[in-house]
Amino acid sequence: MLSQGQIKQITSLRVKKFREESGLFIAEGEKMVQELLNSRYRVAEVYAPAAWIVANLAQLTQLGVKATETLPREMERISGLTTPSPILAVVEIPISTSAHHHISTLAHYHISTLTLALDDIRDPGNLGTIVRVADWFGIGEVVCSEHTVDLYNPKVVQATMGSITRVRVEYRNLQAWLEPLRGQCPVYGAFLQGENLYSEPLGMEGIIVIGNESRGISKTLEPFITRKIYIPAFGPGAGGRAESLNASVATAVICAEFRRRAMMQ
Amino acid sequence: MLSQGQIKQITSLRVKKFREESGLFIAEGEKMVQELLNSRYRVAEVYAPAAWIVANLAQLTQLGVKATETLPREMERISGLTTPSPILAVVEIPISTSAHHHISTLAHYHISTLTLALDDIRDPGNLGTIVRVADWFGIGEVVCSEHTVDLYNPKVVQATMGSITRVRVEYRNLQAWLEPLRGQCPVYGAFLQGENLYSEPLGMEGIIVIGNESRGISKTLEPFITRKIYIPAFGPGAGGRAESLNASVATAVICAEFRRRAMMQ
Repeated sequence: MLSQGQIKQITSLRVKKFREESGLFIAEGEKMVQELLNSRYRVAEVYAPAAWIVANLAQLTQLGVKATETLPREMERISGLTTPSPILAVVEIPISTSAHHHISTLAHYHISTLTLALDDIRDPGNLGTIVRVADWFGIGEVVCSEHTVDLYNPKVVQATMGSITRVRVEYRNLQAWLEPLRGQCPVYGAFLQGENLYSEPLGMEGIIVIGNESRGISKTLEPFITRKIYIPAFGPGAGGRAESLNASVATAVICAEFRRRAMMQ
Repeated sequence: MLSQGQIKQITSLRVKKFREESGLFIAEGEKMVQELLNSRYRVAEVYAPAAWIVANLAQLTQLGVKATETLPREMERISGLTTPSPILAVVEIPISTSAHHHISTLAHYHISTLTLALDDIRDPGNLGTIVRVADWFGIGEVVCSEHTVDLYNPKVVQATMGSITRVRVEYRNLQAWLEPLRGQCPVYGAFLQGENLYSEPLGMEGIIVIGNESRGISKTLEPFITRKIYIPAFGPGAGGRAESLNASVATAVICAEFRRRAMMQ
């Protein structure tokens, strides 16, 4: 039986301010909660049917997770989903280690793999989907601009489909982050006036910058882009078709091509 | 100045039942409304600032569109967007011509290009994004199963970013639609146990079936798939990464590869 206080605390976590104050976020769905329990994340509380709690008691006890039996009609009051799942977890937001911040400000910081940099992605579904895409294509790190939507927004968490447990996501001032990397590795960015993605040489390392949904890559970041690329459209010319692709879709098409090249070698 | 009746009529169109009763849907945003005005769609009403109405008066008059001056605070009451746009249109849902239905039941119906078939796509953002992807990659037709989310759901309309005016979208019983096409053209479908997309021969014609977000391609459609394909992941093995890609993302990666091959020839 949930108390009014619990319901209020859980639903408050849909708002960034309350997530920041409490250092907690919510995640829903059996698979998602299971992945979080098996990850570096610390799950504070789980709301689930009695049967699920009993079945997972050993793990919950070992991890010190507080479990509360929750009935479907109670879940409807705390779930943010249109179709509530039977299981909801309250999870601790990890404290960013200053170590990474330190590394990234060093001039000799080296990008030896592919990294995604997101320049103000605003749509929660897009950010979550991009994290999932990164996970699929073996990209371990996503660096977000400070105005990118919050990773712990429930819609972002759900759209990652569990990939939030495997991909490292950090928030940075992208200019300050890119500055010491100048000349160290290629920085790719999608532009309507870029070179055809399919005829350009693509390596196994570098940074791929993904622009904001409406304005693309910002003017302040454009000077850092060393390789402007373009996903070719097909069929009728400009004016007769879509002006652009959705940000997460463009990310996937670009990452797929980098990985296809690597596999073809 | 909007009347209570207008506000009620417009907001009711967020619900499928009322869209079906009235034969109307809503679309928001200046670019979207402009594309609809220039398309085969019939725009019934436009809600916009006086300046926009005056600037577009010739076209509105010629097309017989009723225009109502709408202030920002009024727009907040009718808009379904988090950040309301200044312009909203009420548009007629086109009446499907029976001609196409007729053609598609003929045994000699021929698919001479690429066509997408959506097997119960439920997320509005996914359907809208898939229509936008189809538009970008020059795929003129998308055939949806009867349980696919409604094209005229406002979230779908917005996610198409105007591509709804260029791509033909139809709803069909996919089994009945595919039956007479057996042996006529390749039918591609993404399966976790499929062949590597990048090492398979891909032609310029055929049907690409996209499965539902949670269960993939349904058992009843599987027998129609003649070419099972798979988008290869990269990096750590299964268990160490995402189980799948988002439906619209997978659609884009597959369509991009079909078009890359065509361009390489």
